[in-house]
Formats: sequence, structure tokens, C-alpha cells
Amino acid sequence: MIDLDFDKQGGLVPAIAQDARSGEILMLAYMNENAWHKTLETGEAHYWSRSRHSLWHKGESSGHVQHVKSIRVDCDSDTIVLLVEQVGGAACHMGYRSCFYRELKDGTVSECSPKIFDPSEVYK
Amino acid sequence: MIDLDFDKQGGLVPAIAQDARSGEILMLAYMNENAWHKTLETGEAHYWSRSRHSLWHKGESSGHVQHVKSIRVDCDSDTIVLLVEQVGGAACHMGYRSCFYRELKDGTVSECSPKIFDPSEVYK
Repeated sequence: MIDLDFDKQGGLVPAIAQDARSGEILMLAYMNENAWHKTLETGEAHYWSRSRHSLWHKGESSGHVQHVKSIRVDCDSDTIVLLVEQVGGAACHMGYRSCFYRELKDGTVSECSPKIFDPSEVYK
Repeated sequence: MIDLDFDKQGGLVPAIAQDARSGEILMLAYMNENAWHKTLETGEAHYWSRSRHSLWHKGESSGHVQHVKSIRVDCDSDTIVLLVEQVGGAACHMGYRSCFYRELKDGTVSECSPKIFDPSEVYK
């Protein structure tokens, strides 16, 4: 199977969530070994919240879970890509489809990902 | 403009390189502030090599530079996506188009990215 290198970055591995259909990059978060095993067991993305210092089942409060369709692993086994179906259509806590909603191009910054929900309506 | 948060991760920001045309995720590396400014100045991806502890102009030895078409920044300003044109067609030092060339799906691991070159021919 696949053994990830959790030692390189103090027990954490960066995990990029990518929309399985469109290829849009939705977010980057981190997994510890427990989050990795929970993700494999449940088929839903689990991360390690660095701010809350706890296991983070993405979507546990908003309902916007990520169904994991497949997982890609890099050459060093220290970074992964989750190909996901994002329930609710938005990965970002600010309501955008992607956390990467700002784009710098030709010296100008513009929004490049649509706003799907109003955070004040979802996180009450 | 855009100010990145280099403090959150000890002076480094993860940078995901994504093929600007196909949307394939090619690699993840890290930038310090100098690499970030070099990338903006030159239009070619520069990273910080954590193993060599030095500025890393991607492609400096292989010729496989990355032309940066645009840059996306996440909601926390602590992670970026570079939309690139990968010269030579391969981002991975092992010769694959993407560093994420292994895919775990339905309990099976298979290769999901083509091998473009033989590393022993490129890095002599």
C-alpha cells in the first residue's frame, strides 16, 4: 500500500483537495496519521486543524463534507492530493467554491472563484 | 497587492504548481520571501529548497523551468497556486509529468501520470 512520510514535517502531511470533476484546486490543509486513517476508513476528508489542535472532519459543522474519490501521492510520499466531490459546492469557510479565490495576473488581482454561500447564514 | 503570510510556517509558504491548461497538479514546493519576489520579478517559478537550504530556480539544472501564467492566493494568504506552463512537460525529478504519479483508488495503487523522460539521461 502507500506509506506516507509524516516525519518530514513534524507529524503532518499537506493535503491538497482538488475537485474530481473540474480539476479546480479547492484548498490545502494538513493531515496527521490519525486524520489519514480516518479519511481512508470513512471515504470523507479528515484533516488536522493546526489552529484548534484537533481532528477536523471537514464539513462537520457546515455539512459540506468532501467525498474522496481517489488519492494521489507524490514522489517523496510527503504530500497528497485528494480528488473530491465537495458537498454544497464550496470548500472555503468564506463561502467561495475554492479557498484560492483571488488571482494575480498581469499585475492585477481579481476574484476567480464564485461565492456559493453567505458564511453568516451557514455558521451560526 | 497581495501580502503573503510567511510567519505562519517559519518563513515558508506552500506553493502548488498546477498546469495552466490541463489543470493537472504537478508538484508542491515551498517559497520563502526571496523566492516569492524572484518568481514575481522573473515570471519563472522559484522555490526554497528545504533539503539544500538554498534558493531553487526550478529547472536550473534540467532546463525544465516553469513559466508562471497567474498566481492564486488562498483565504488565509498562507498558501498559493502557481498556474504554469511546464517546459519539457515534466515537473517531477523522476521524469513523470506530475510528482503525483501514484493514485490510490478503490484499494488499488496505479500510475496516473505519464513518464516523460529518463532521469539518468537528464541529470548527469
